[in-house]
Amino acid sequence: MENMPFAYSALFRTDLPPPAQPYNGFPKYNFVGGHNDADSTPVEGLIAAATAVLQREGRSLATYGLDSGPLGYRPLREFLAAKLERTAGIAATADQILVTSGSLQGLDLINQVLVARGDTVVIEDATYGGVLTRLKRIGANIIGVPLDREGMRMDALAATLEQLKSQGVAPRYIYTIPTVQNPTGSIMPVARRAELIRLAAAHHVPIVEDECYSDLVWAGTRPPALMAMSDMAHVIHVGSFSKSIAPALRVGYIAAGWEVLSRLLSVKSDAGSGALEQMVVAEYCVRHFDEHIAGLSRTLEGKLDVLIEALGEQFGTAAEFERPAGGIFLWVRLPETVDTTRLAQVALTAGIAINPGVEWSIDPLAGKRSLRICFAHPSKQTLRAGVQSLAEVCHREMGVPARIANVERSK
Amino acid sequence: MENMPFAYSALFRTDLPPPAQPYNGFPKYNFVGGHNDADSTPVEGLIAAATAVLQREGRSLATYGLDSGPLGYRPLREFLAAKLERTAGIAATADQILVTSGSLQGLDLINQVLVARGDTVVIEDATYGGVLTRLKRIGANIIGVPLDREGMRMDALAATLEQLKSQGVAPRYIYTIPTVQNPTGSIMPVARRAELIRLAAAHHVPIVEDECYSDLVWAGTRPPALMAMSDMAHVIHVGSFSKSIAPALRVGYIAAGWEVLSRLLSVKSDAGSGALEQMVVAEYCVRHFDEHIAGLSRTLEGKLDVLIEALGEQFGTAAEFERPAGGIFLWVRLPETVDTTRLAQVALTAGIAINPGVEWSIDPLAGKRSLRICFAHPSKQTLRAGVQSLAEVCHREMGVPARIANVERSK
Repeated sequence: MENMPFAYSALFRTDLPPPAQPYNGFPKYNFVGGHNDADSTPVEGLIAAATAVLQREGRSLATYGLDSGPLGYRPLREFLAAKLERTAGIAATADQILVTSGSLQGLDLINQVLVARGDTVVIEDATYGGVLTRLKRIGANIIGVPLDREGMRMDALAATLEQLKSQGVAPRYIYTIPTVQNPTGSIMPVARRAELIRLAAAHHVPIVEDECYSDLVWAGTRPPALMAMSDMAHVIHVGSFSKSIAPALRVGYIAAGWEVLSRLLSVKSDAGSGALEQMVVAEYCVRHFDEHIAGLSRTLEGKLDVLIEALGEQFGTAAEFERPAGGIFLWVRLPETVDTTRLAQVALTAGIAINPGVEWSIDPLAGKRSLRICFAHPSKQTLRAGVQSLAEVCHREMGVPARIANVERSK
Repeated sequence: MENMPFAYSALFRTDLPPPAQPYNGFPKYNFVGGHNDADSTPVEGLIAAATAVLQREGRSLATYGLDSGPLGYRPLREFLAAKLERTAGIAATADQILVTSGSLQGLDLINQVLVARGDTVVIEDATYGGVLTRLKRIGANIIGVPLDREGMRMDALAATLEQLKSQGVAPRYIYTIPTVQNPTGSIMPVARRAELIRLAAAHHVPIVEDECYSDLVWAGTRPPALMAMSDMAHVIHVGSFSKSIAPALRVGYIAAGWEVLSRLLSVKSDAGSGALEQMVVAEYCVRHFDEHIAGLSRTLEGKLDVLIEALGEQFGTAAEFERPAGGIFLWVRLPETVDTTRLAQVALTAGIAINPGVEWSIDPLAGKRSLRICFAHPSKQTLRAGVQSLAEVCHREMGVPARIANVERSK
């Protein structure tokens, strides 16, 4: 026994997910994850920001929380307060904003204070996969509400809330991505937002509004946030710089009333989020945010156009989708004969990574014919070649698409 | 009801800590927290590092995990592998190191994979308060082992492990801070390290070795790490750049075998730790780490000397302590009549923040007459003035010290 390496099998908790696999680099056609356009990373601007802010305030890195306390770097919270008011109509002060290590930490903190095992959460039928895995690990009861082209359907939400009420169940929150919904890309119109707020208030259910993609709207403007249209305390507003500046910078935020913020703070036991990233993002964004976003959005919309064109050429009518109003992903439906989970497995062996719909869907069957393609990171050339390869794999394995550009495919 | 702000009282989980209080800035004499010497922050070096690394690799910020995968920025892991071998004798490769958002995230991940409610953890009698609050929140059964001037006592550990064995209890891990123990500042000698490893192996208990302060040793060298002296898989080694470079940078790490790392990775669901901080720390440390540490240690030892001198002048023999061999804190025992929890409360109203011993002790009574004074952040002048104020408060409230510099104090 003394020569055997120490073994942990009997010591690990019994409720763990499977162990991670060693990292082997990205596949050739990487259409998953929230990666962004590398050419759009504002490298020179970030260097200038880092130099300026470190020169001015670098000594404060010797202090946990800088001089700003546990809510995060104050100039970043002040930038956010101004930006949220200007773009989303939210009237939050800097003291109603908590900077988090990415929006994922924000979602973890919200769950830590609101959701215990067995609690119920209401959520869009198709939604961000990371939220589903989190709620499943907690052991939450997840209730899905169908979507249409305008986001969460209010007739279905009303029925869901009524039914839960009749069962004596008080949902912990309604989770929604109203502005550039993930994965469908829809933007909820103002009237529906008002109806959502009315229903949630009538049933006394908080709303968690996730706006991670809301800066990337092709039109350049977006409807007011749910938080802007309601009693501020009713909504917990989550956002991020991952999609607007750079995903590897882990800078997200939560705007909320103090009753909630004071609870989130008391479980945020990380001694603060990374200060240098907060300082550099603040310094850069105060000067360049709007201009950067305008350029990035044009670039992303250009890539979306290439993706849509390639899907049309390679899949023809076999690939159905709504053109998203912003963001970095396209939600595609293939014919009913296709199982995208199997397609994703086979495609990966050909160097193509896609999100099968089941990972982004509450109902495992509902996502079966859908897939999510992230288009921000690959070059236009890679998008074209990857879609062509995907069509070839899909045709070979599933018989779909049967034709390319009106030419029958050889088997 | 419609005009009332939305209230969460019935929605919060029932097991939460008390809500946080609004931040009101630091007290005048801030002797708590792991803050560091502001003048020692290598501002120019960090600017040069940020500029160089962003110029070279800034585009990779567009990708979650950069090009390095989920273990963290590879050049940082390579620097750590070399540094751990050179300074602590550890033979870990870059693929056996996981970069975390501070060592606190590392401790959270370790607990997430090893400790469920009711599980037993063995730990030093006086230890880092953040570990105690974490284990208490999980609902762990915390067993303390007494310390002496050489760290955890092996006779007591042997008895504890035997007793647990007789009760059929398999402890999840032994947590130790062998090199600059927090709060006592001791360094465990090599022979005792060997005995600790032998006992832990005989009882098949993993060792969590926390080395957050081990770079700051006045002598410049330290004994080999427990991980270096044992089967590597037996030890989970935790470290940080918070004390060596800057606390507001949230960069820590775990060295461990893949059986453990693969589990830690699978519960690390934060989409990576902050990349810019990893990049800048790596770029800076590769060039300047040793030189920076040498200068910082000299500065800290100079502040320690001032603190010890001030305590001698103000408290005389009423303040007992061992001169620590490194680090940023001094563990002080006052006469038995003093309750440091009450002292800390009264002192705070006079603008003096100290850690009362109970926060750093497993047995609430054991810490009653002890306190921890962090000396890295205040200037020498502030250290002197703060100790004088603390002596005045302590004398007024507790009658201790009775004399100053052999002159009886006026009441």
